[in-house]
Amino acid sequence: MTAHTDDAAPAARRPRGRPRKSTPAVDTRGLIVRAAGTEFAAHGYDATSVRAVARRAGVDAALVHHYFDTKADLFAATVRVPVRPDRLVAEVLAGPRDAIGTSIVLAAVTALDDPKAGRRVIRLLHTALGQEFAATMLRQFLHHEVFGRIADELGGEQPELRASLAGSQMVGLIVARYGLRVEPLASASAEEVARRVGPIIQWHLTGDLPPLDTAQRTGE
Amino acid sequence: MTAHTDDAAPAARRPRGRPRKSTPAVDTRGLIVRAAGTEFAAHGYDATSVRAVARRAGVDAALVHHYFDTKADLFAATVRVPVRPDRLVAEVLAGPRDAIGTSIVLAAVTALDDPKAGRRVIRLLHTALGQEFAATMLRQFLHHEVFGRIADELGGEQPELRASLAGSQMVGLIVARYGLRVEPLASASAEEVARRVGPIIQWHLTGDLPPLDTAQRTGE
Repeated sequence: MTAHTDDAAPAARRPRGRPRKSTPAVDTRGLIVRAAGTEFAAHGYDATSVRAVARRAGVDAALVHHYFDTKADLFAATVRVPVRPDRLVAEVLAGPRDAIGTSIVLAAVTALDDPKAGRRVIRLLHTALGQEFAATMLRQFLHHEVFGRIADELGGEQPELRASLAGSQMVGLIVARYGLRVEPLASASAEEVARRVGPIIQWHLTGDLPPLDTAQRTGE
Repeated sequence: MTAHTDDAAPAARRPRGRPRKSTPAVDTRGLIVRAAGTEFAAHGYDATSVRAVARRAGVDAALVHHYFDTKADLFAATVRVPVRPDRLVAEVLAGPRDAIGTSIVLAAVTALDDPKAGRRVIRLLHTALGQEFAATMLRQFLHHEVFGRIADELGGEQPELRASLAGSQMVGLIVARYGLRVEPLASASAEEVARRVGPIIQWHLTGDLPPLDTAQRTGE
């Protein structure tokens, strides 16, 4: 799940500001990403600190923060996640509560319908299913940055279980549409998928029932 | 996804009758399974025939049928699928219609909670997400033997899309519980998972709503 096992290391992207300590000849960002990959793989997501990544990269922690605001950003760059579930969820939770499910599905599917993004998320899941450390990293990231935040926000009975069940439906949708490419699901429009899967996510997260019936009818 | 790429070839099981043409010293069943693996990998599930498998194994087609009643049986042996989704679905469809969702989930989760079965289904998905031919085999098998049969049985609007969506929820549940082992989903009882995911499957397949509310309340 590190950048160098799956794929060529990504080209360094030009940061918005100017790095404080690097010279143009050194790919400081790439150096930090590789160091982060090693740390995440060795210690998992939870136990890895920005300080430890900086130490391994031989740079100052402030320089890591220059490129990556949070540990989640560092992780996303390390595993080259094509869609940021933590950001997507934060945005959707800030919007109208009765549209959470449909919004999450529509945003995720629209982003992953880009062939490169779809392939990358499948490669990430492939790695996670084949390597224990990769599964641990991804599980801890999802737990800490996605499901845990949803649970904190929504409350109710067993919010973490409900968040993880919503996550399971999203993962299954991704595997079926972009990995196995089961038809007619693989060719259905993003809107139709959102109409049919959104209510499931909504139900898992909030227990709201009404959108289900609407979705059945509008899908006909 | 063939038996020999993933794992050691399975020991030949003693067939119920006596094979017509093999001698005890020859692992005829293993020979047939390896030949089937090669044929499925080369031509996919749909285009592979029992006759072609027999030809590649150098045996009579009747001998293949002695060990394997159907092509689905041959496929299941080839990829060593730990749970037979085609049989499970056939059994559940023969039972009460309003319990389809919960029955499917409870039967699948109970079977896969066996650690060996859970690991094997994840290995199968891992292979399918990493190799194009493995994804094609699995997709065609699911389409032909599982989703297509559900759709034929249930009818209604867009039955194949609804069957594939139900399948996506099952796949996601399997990945989250047995692959990524996301908590608290990974440790929840089979009954609780069936209570919470069964209504989703039911809704995808039949459009029935009532069990959803019950599940929410009993889950509290």
